[in-house]
Amino acid sequence: MSLSVIDAAHHSQLLNFERTILAKQAQIEAWFRAQWRKHRAPFYGSVDIRNSGYKLASIDMNLFPGGFNNLNPNFLPLASIAAIDAVERACPEAHSVLLIPENHTRNTFYLQNVYALFCILRHAGMQVRIGTINPDITESTVFTTANGDHITLEPVQRQGNRLYLADGFNPCLILLNNDLSGGVPDILHNLEQALLPPLKAGWTTRRKSTHFHAYNQVAAEFAHLIDIDEWTINPFYEVCSGMDFSTHEGENHLAEAVERVLQRIQQKYDQMGITDRPFVIVKADAGTYGMGVMTVHSADDVRGLNRKKRNKMAKIKEGLAVTEVIVQEGIYTYETLHNAVAEPVVYMMDRFVIGGFYRVHEDRGPDENLNAVGMHFIPLQQNIASVNSDIVGEEVKSKRVFEQWENLGITVADNANQANDCENIRLYVYGVLARLSLLAAAIELENMPD
Amino acid sequence: MSLSVIDAAHHSQLLNFERTILAKQAQIEAWFRAQWRKHRAPFYGSVDIRNSGYKLASIDMNLFPGGFNNLNPNFLPLASIAAIDAVERACPEAHSVLLIPENHTRNTFYLQNVYALFCILRHAGMQVRIGTINPDITESTVFTTANGDHITLEPVQRQGNRLYLADGFNPCLILLNNDLSGGVPDILHNLEQALLPPLKAGWTTRRKSTHFHAYNQVAAEFAHLIDIDEWTINPFYEVCSGMDFSTHEGENHLAEAVERVLQRIQQKYDQMGITDRPFVIVKADAGTYGMGVMTVHSADDVRGLNRKKRNKMAKIKEGLAVTEVIVQEGIYTYETLHNAVAEPVVYMMDRFVIGGFYRVHEDRGPDENLNAVGMHFIPLQQNIASVNSDIVGEEVKSKRVFEQWENLGITVADNANQANDCENIRLYVYGVLARLSLLAAAIELENMPD
Repeated sequence: MSLSVIDAAHHSQLLNFERTILAKQAQIEAWFRAQWRKHRAPFYGSVDIRNSGYKLASIDMNLFPGGFNNLNPNFLPLASIAAIDAVERACPEAHSVLLIPENHTRNTFYLQNVYALFCILRHAGMQVRIGTINPDITESTVFTTANGDHITLEPVQRQGNRLYLADGFNPCLILLNNDLSGGVPDILHNLEQALLPPLKAGWTTRRKSTHFHAYNQVAAEFAHLIDIDEWTINPFYEVCSGMDFSTHEGENHLAEAVERVLQRIQQKYDQMGITDRPFVIVKADAGTYGMGVMTVHSADDVRGLNRKKRNKMAKIKEGLAVTEVIVQEGIYTYETLHNAVAEPVVYMMDRFVIGGFYRVHEDRGPDENLNAVGMHFIPLQQNIASVNSDIVGEEVKSKRVFEQWENLGITVADNANQANDCENIRLYVYGVLARLSLLAAAIELENMPD
Repeated sequence: MSLSVIDAAHHSQLLNFERTILAKQAQIEAWFRAQWRKHRAPFYGSVDIRNSGYKLASIDMNLFPGGFNNLNPNFLPLASIAAIDAVERACPEAHSVLLIPENHTRNTFYLQNVYALFCILRHAGMQVRIGTINPDITESTVFTTANGDHITLEPVQRQGNRLYLADGFNPCLILLNNDLSGGVPDILHNLEQALLPPLKAGWTTRRKSTHFHAYNQVAAEFAHLIDIDEWTINPFYEVCSGMDFSTHEGENHLAEAVERVLQRIQQKYDQMGITDRPFVIVKADAGTYGMGVMTVHSADDVRGLNRKKRNKMAKIKEGLAVTEVIVQEGIYTYETLHNAVAEPVVYMMDRFVIGGFYRVHEDRGPDENLNAVGMHFIPLQQNIASVNSDIVGEEVKSKRVFEQWENLGITVADNANQANDCENIRLYVYGVLARLSLLAAAIELENMPD
């Protein structure tokens, strides 16, 4: 794999940051271990990271990740090891897992993700079956995935407070890969079987603002631990509620929040000598799939929004109306691969980083370079969250490249102060950032009522 | 990586075996998980596997493995994850580990192994220092490893029942990478700090026969689980004690044991329609490092041994006299890589396979093929156990190639019955065999008095 290139103007800042992380590696890992004794890690998660060199943070944390199919298959045994830990904690004698995926069965890339999860669990020694709560699937049905594998989706049945399959399969654990954007179906309420992630982690109840509130706590403690300015890993944000994009309601309120966040960023930029133009991301507090997301450079941008933009913001997945948004500091992405903007995506299972890739935006860089290296193009199939508004509007025709990571990052330098930026170190640093978000998610879930 | 080639005459037998394993994967993994709830896995281990197609078993289990430097560095994060588990079980709050390696500091490949272990532990968030019990090292000394990395060996000091380093470093866990062939030094007795593996795992007290006794139990249960003939994974053996090779004492006794084991093998071969000529391996019951090992094709081979052979058998590492040997059924190695005999070596940390490689014997195949593919040659430096007597006699000049595995084996087939032999499946099967030996080692240690 090629390592992404960081804009020369900001490379030395990134290098300093990496050296700091590297020099404190033992403390960092010991700190994580102590945190995981206090907080239970989510079953799995993925994060999107933005890296401007002077600032590095995950800007989204997905608790029902798709895209396991995009990970390096060499690391699937590692995922299995992590899964064993998570499953055994949920039910020590677990032999059987019922995986419940999203309802959209026409997305063969998503089905490939389901197949990857199936393989991870089976390799961990579980009996795995795939249940579906899609009302259109009324009998056991075989689907073909994007790569030609086969999965069988079987309608889930409920008897008393347990889920079964038609032949009596009585799972000990139910694993959701369905983010419940459309609400929690009755069939999943009050089950006596272990259910992971918990229903409250679904977008029916989850709020980005609650996550970032928990992240504030994590970032502050971590920044203190390694003695860095918390801002370098934590974007500013504000929450706006009472919005109705379809009627312009709340627009002024939103514009004021945008103005405040932009001012705080500008102040910080001035202090740090950063000449970039501040921007914010406005996104649905309960949103996912890159829907309901806007890039905003000034307060005026959110006043008098045109119909197209309002429509885009008004509703997200499953037609949910957006009434709360968060205004989050935007982080410039100064990473490129083959001249196209590249964003790291990190996957975790239980406490562990199990893989990742660069999501390379073809439409942001010259096509010829992207085509030159024989990479695998995958149409955007909404199976991976994105918050980039430029892309969202063109979902159907935009394309992405997923460049798999060939390692997971480990330090090899004798002397952290002399270490140069390299794949091993960069990916390790991404893994640290990703786990900060994972820890925030653990705390977020603890703080939510059941 | 190329997959090793199995002799055509035996390939279909291997394929059948692999399909059986694959079809029972969920049961096998669930069984292992249940076993690890009953038996505590050793901290680490490595095994040597022999594969004739019709028979497949690990013939040696090392509880103080060297050679971590030969593993694919991509899997070191996985090793770290496994190490965290093992370390936290030994001492939950562990921040500090003292690694005590072998005393032979001139072997730079062994030092590279120490460096690899150091990295694995550091990546797991431990403070790691390397202590030495080599009396020749009286002050902190930097050594350069084969690949040019640096490690610092510091003399271990004892105060009361704890080990320290000169600056007061007070480890919570002591990790031995020293197999104690020369006896247990006083400084290690009765420590209050956690010590892994336990002293009794060292070759002062450990006996191969005790291991294989435990393996009998494991192999029988596993064979029953997946409904195979236990013999296909378990070599016959007998133990002979009261030997003194320097005076021919016990030779007749040994010859009779050889005769009995050869007869049992022949009987089994006849029953299975195998036309190979039976052979046995005679090896020191407390031996390691491929020393004190003989290949024997008939009882007469061990009568009236010439001086050279007797010398070779009489003493092993650290000059220990050999008085007990085991006579173990030999398994033909019908695996080749680039026309040279190739033997899988599997490494485990805690319950998990963390890597492996093929040990390719250059002197058994044409050199030209071995040189053709740009492989990395490493002189045999006694840092990896071997039981092949043909090699042992020529330790100084023989060379080996370590061909790293690029994956750890995971099943990808929809239908186990249609699966074809491939790298993923073969390596998974090796991993199963390796873990059977690991489990036997766990039981072996439980059964030994402290």
